[in-house]
Amino acid sequence: MQTRPILIVGSMAFDDLEFPVPVPDADGTARTSFVDVVGGSATYSSLAASAFAPVRVVAVVGNDFPESALDTMRSRQIDTAGIERADGLTFRWKGRYHADLVNRDTLDTQLNVFANFRPKLADGYGDSPLVLLGNIHPELQLEVLDQIRKPELVVADTMNFWITGEPKTLAKLIERTDLLIINDEEARLLSGIHNLARAAKDILSRGPKGLIIKRGEHGSLYFDKDGIFASPALLLENVVDPTGAGDSFAGGLLGYLADHGTYDHATMRRAMLHGTAAASFCVEAVGTNGIRSLEREHVRKRVERIRHLTHVGEE
Amino acid sequence: MQTRPILIVGSMAFDDLEFPVPVPDADGTARTSFVDVVGGSATYSSLAASAFAPVRVVAVVGNDFPESALDTMRSRQIDTAGIERADGLTFRWKGRYHADLVNRDTLDTQLNVFANFRPKLADGYGDSPLVLLGNIHPELQLEVLDQIRKPELVVADTMNFWITGEPKTLAKLIERTDLLIINDEEARLLSGIHNLARAAKDILSRGPKGLIIKRGEHGSLYFDKDGIFASPALLLENVVDPTGAGDSFAGGLLGYLADHGTYDHATMRRAMLHGTAAASFCVEAVGTNGIRSLEREHVRKRVERIRHLTHVGEE
Repeated sequence: MQTRPILIVGSMAFDDLEFPVPVPDADGTARTSFVDVVGGSATYSSLAASAFAPVRVVAVVGNDFPESALDTMRSRQIDTAGIERADGLTFRWKGRYHADLVNRDTLDTQLNVFANFRPKLADGYGDSPLVLLGNIHPELQLEVLDQIRKPELVVADTMNFWITGEPKTLAKLIERTDLLIINDEEARLLSGIHNLARAAKDILSRGPKGLIIKRGEHGSLYFDKDGIFASPALLLENVVDPTGAGDSFAGGLLGYLADHGTYDHATMRRAMLHGTAAASFCVEAVGTNGIRSLEREHVRKRVERIRHLTHVGEE
Repeated sequence: MQTRPILIVGSMAFDDLEFPVPVPDADGTARTSFVDVVGGSATYSSLAASAFAPVRVVAVVGNDFPESALDTMRSRQIDTAGIERADGLTFRWKGRYHADLVNRDTLDTQLNVFANFRPKLADGYGDSPLVLLGNIHPELQLEVLDQIRKPELVVADTMNFWITGEPKTLAKLIERTDLLIINDEEARLLSGIHNLARAAKDILSRGPKGLIIKRGEHGSLYFDKDGIFASPALLLENVVDPTGAGDSFAGGLLGYLADHGTYDHATMRRAMLHGTAAASFCVEAVGTNGIRSLEREHVRKRVERIRHLTHVGEE
């Protein structure tokens, strides 16, 4: 069986990051403040997914985005032909993490070239069997979806901003989504229901075959007609930078699915563990340092550690 | 092999409870406010544990405590000879739950007869092989422990109030504890470390062989020298009243251990699921309504549901 290619649309960005304690850079220097860190949802997702499958990226960067970052992607079976280099500056996000490394304040957002982003699929992208619609305007997510001829699996991410601001467009997208990935607060906001089991039922009634609810350090949940799966998170001793963890999760998950070509409940359970493992590598280093050399074997070993966390033998 | 008896010391109380939405009483009437609900850590723990093992309770109640509640306990292999009926009113707690059914405000606490509680072990209690030291003053927990001749397993619960207010006495208790059960915030406070993996290591270095960190709706974690186990919580559609969930967890866990008489890592994993199952019954009804008829078979069935939540087949 051939590994299927994954089309990923999302943001590519510079992140300026502030941490509560000094953390090591790639070269080992420890500091609390990092600027021009290459990030964005498409960057994280594609780096993680490419440990398992070929990836095609649809995104936009500015004149200032380093060619070396694109070279890194190309060295990992990531097709960058769909990454438009527009005249202007790359999207920039500046954030400060709290002491818990969970909560964070956005200090600045500069849309720059992302403000006028209209996703353009490169030649051949229209036949992509797996599609990951990263967290961008649902109108753009639909625009990408319209250009895919016959997707086997459509996965979408979204956020509070679109749930509140674009409910009708988002509803259309969700109807056409096979697998929706959101966090617990987003699930509550989208459904209007606090209880997660009931919120999940409500969301599944709106179209998607599957729903993943991410709970950060508490792991994640998968819901479909065949049941519920709970993936624990690994208990890491050194969590450094949670930026991109959710996108790495989606990338690892889709990579596994693309490599298997089946999307049934049992496969989804294993895919969840692969997403969890990819995310665990992401948070152990600043920016993409934890995942840009990620190999299938690293992920597999960590999946076994995660499985062992919940293993219960027979009496 | 004979099931071992468990000695449980803790509070017995009246709880006045306020909920964000109307919830059904035992007779089906729905309301948001309940008064004189029989509660307390010893009550919840002993009801849950008695689904598996004989229980001996050491506690104090006032003149106003209903004999019928003690009759219910006695009908479930709970020895109430250690429950002292003191002259005065029973300990009373009044709380109001927030909409998330997790956070709550304490509106009133009346210690009453609990203020002068000195645990007295009834005849024969001194040979108890399993001991659950519920969340009371660590001085009293030590006083009970001193009266047990040769305990096989000493389990202790505590809280922020004692961690901050009685650190030295608590340290003595923890040193003599085999298994400490606290929640995530208490683990962080006790160790002074935010990261749970490192907090657990620190706490284990203070004496206990095992540590359980409860995370409410996110499940619980078990740490010992042989590894880490993560138990998910069941995703319940109808969470009504979380009061006593942690105590029911401890009761279910100890009940399982008493029934097996081994306390190794593999047994602890199964015991954690039994605690989780007992807690899940507790939160589905007001007060002790969800657990006062709890049978071993109910728990076993739910344990299978919890196991299935994290089950991942081979590829």
